[in-house]
Amino acid sequence: MSGMTPGAGAEWLKNEGFCCDVVMSSRVRLARNFAGYPFVNKARRDDRVQIMRVAERHILGAGLAPEMLWVDMGELPEIERLVLVERHLISTQHAKGDEPRGLAVSSPDERIAIMVNEEDHLRIQYMRSGLSLTDVFREINDIDDRIESHIDYAFSPRFGYLTACPTNVGTGIRVSVMVHLPALKLSGELEKVRRSARAMNLAIRGFYGEGSEAAGDFFQISNQTTLGKSEEQIVTEFEQERIRGIIQYERHARSRLLEKRRVMLEDKVFRALGTLRHARLLRAEEAFELLSYVRLGISTGLIDLPMETVNRLVLLCQPAHLQKVQRKDLSQSRRRIERASLVRQHFEQASS
Amino acid sequence: MSGMTPGAGAEWLKNEGFCCDVVMSSRVRLARNFAGYPFVNKARRDDRVQIMRVAERHILGAGLAPEMLWVDMGELPEIERLVLVERHLISTQHAKGDEPRGLAVSSPDERIAIMVNEEDHLRIQYMRSGLSLTDVFREINDIDDRIESHIDYAFSPRFGYLTACPTNVGTGIRVSVMVHLPALKLSGELEKVRRSARAMNLAIRGFYGEGSEAAGDFFQISNQTTLGKSEEQIVTEFEQERIRGIIQYERHARSRLLEKRRVMLEDKVFRALGTLRHARLLRAEEAFELLSYVRLGISTGLIDLPMETVNRLVLLCQPAHLQKVQRKDLSQSRRRIERASLVRQHFEQASS
Repeated sequence: MSGMTPGAGAEWLKNEGFCCDVVMSSRVRLARNFAGYPFVNKARRDDRVQIMRVAERHILGAGLAPEMLWVDMGELPEIERLVLVERHLISTQHAKGDEPRGLAVSSPDERIAIMVNEEDHLRIQYMRSGLSLTDVFREINDIDDRIESHIDYAFSPRFGYLTACPTNVGTGIRVSVMVHLPALKLSGELEKVRRSARAMNLAIRGFYGEGSEAAGDFFQISNQTTLGKSEEQIVTEFEQERIRGIIQYERHARSRLLEKRRVMLEDKVFRALGTLRHARLLRAEEAFELLSYVRLGISTGLIDLPMETVNRLVLLCQPAHLQKVQRKDLSQSRRRIERASLVRQHFEQASS
Repeated sequence: MSGMTPGAGAEWLKNEGFCCDVVMSSRVRLARNFAGYPFVNKARRDDRVQIMRVAERHILGAGLAPEMLWVDMGELPEIERLVLVERHLISTQHAKGDEPRGLAVSSPDERIAIMVNEEDHLRIQYMRSGLSLTDVFREINDIDDRIESHIDYAFSPRFGYLTACPTNVGTGIRVSVMVHLPALKLSGELEKVRRSARAMNLAIRGFYGEGSEAAGDFFQISNQTTLGKSEEQIVTEFEQERIRGIIQYERHARSRLLEKRRVMLEDKVFRALGTLRHARLLRAEEAFELLSYVRLGISTGLIDLPMETVNRLVLLCQPAHLQKVQRKDLSQSRRRIERASLVRQHFEQASS
């Protein structure tokens, strides 16, 4: 995993692209299974090993990117697996267990990440900074085609792509964005947005996806239905009708805070900056919350600091990254000290 | 009240003298009444006016200090009366009501403050920075003698000095210190100290005395009994046996925090500093609490800033002082903005 240096920015933290003040990243994921092999939950160990071999050979041979890394998850130390979770390259489930499972990832951009033997034989993910689902969809389609030209997928003319879980049958597509909604949170409108998202059949999840809490007002929003619509329809509707609306809500909430409650907003964002610059102990959740406010301060022009500082810290404050930077296992209390120290260093460099 | 400029340090904020890391100030107060006049609570308006005249003439004529100011409380705007409360020169009761009442105060040191027509005809206070009750007692004795050489006090050979409230009969003395006990608070030992103080017949009160809450871990500790002991006994016992013990407790708690929980302590004091340096809105109570931590940080050598900055801010963050500095009436929300701005300015000046 030499390509994955902790200091390098993950794609979703680049803060580039359309609407990147609100949308940190766009992601499309496809669920695919090989014809002639049982689904992962029915597969014996032998089958899984066989699937791994097929996947490795065909993915690496498909010319998906200038450099594709192959990772046998079983050979990776736990800390490295957690680093992959924190970089949003694998699911938390994929980091656990001792069944044969793998990961192919494009290096150094980490835009392509393909989990092998997670819930399906392949979970293909393509990710880009900012709101760019149409581009992402075009890219992942190309990746999908290239893999399919080497191997047969399990496909039914009636249902479409077959998947281990019926909710993914059909296109097997899931479209999601990571958004930052601090103004909606501050103005107490988040619940309203959640309700309207649910009404539009969107799922809102926390920073680490399924089952995780929202950390620092970062949320993953994804489509729920994959059946009965074309992939293009799904992507276009999601981007144009769903997400654009949420972006407008958040931007509107930011303008209103600036206009009507400017001092309260300044107080929040500068206190957050003051605590980050001075604390000697920082829990991950608190660091996220404070970084979220500073991000809002930079977005609204109240704080004059490079966004890169905040983005890098969102990544590095996570437990596994922190330990990788420090090159050692750290107890929880030691992590709080090291996290605070790392944060102070970054803010000192940024303001000098 | 030209002598009372808000920026000037009150005696109790000078941070000079013995044990001034814990004891901010020492104070002795005497309750005295003139012979031949009814107690204040029994006095008619005419009597009170008469008492005022007698007091003004004899106090100003007694040569107590190079300059003594005389204040007719009825002529003072409310804001100025509150400034006197905040400087610990008069009680909150003395600031209220419309009965004739006065104040004599030495200028510019404010060590002597004599309330006229508070609960007793005279409440004579002498205050010094640090732990110096023996000196304070010598000074107030001299003041008492000088006044008594001009006018007869109400005195009974059997009971001693007569006072409006029986708890003050006898010596009419109350001895008190303002202490800063942040380490005992942080280490959760404050309740233990309170209990042992009660057992020693001491009263522990908040920052503004009777009935007030503790603000920022500043407490007033005073003796409770005045009957049956000589004044010297009272002062010596209070200083040598009572207060020295509490000072040792607090210093010990500080050493232990530095030794055993240094990072937690650093985190507390630097977060407080960070918030004071960055906040845009500050309530008075929060400002006190944060200044208290910074004071602890300076005392323990963790923070390198002049103590004067903290002391002046403890004074200026109070509502009436804040409005006097700004030279206008301020709404509560406006005060929070101005307080935060004042605090930032002082810390910027201090670190440049």
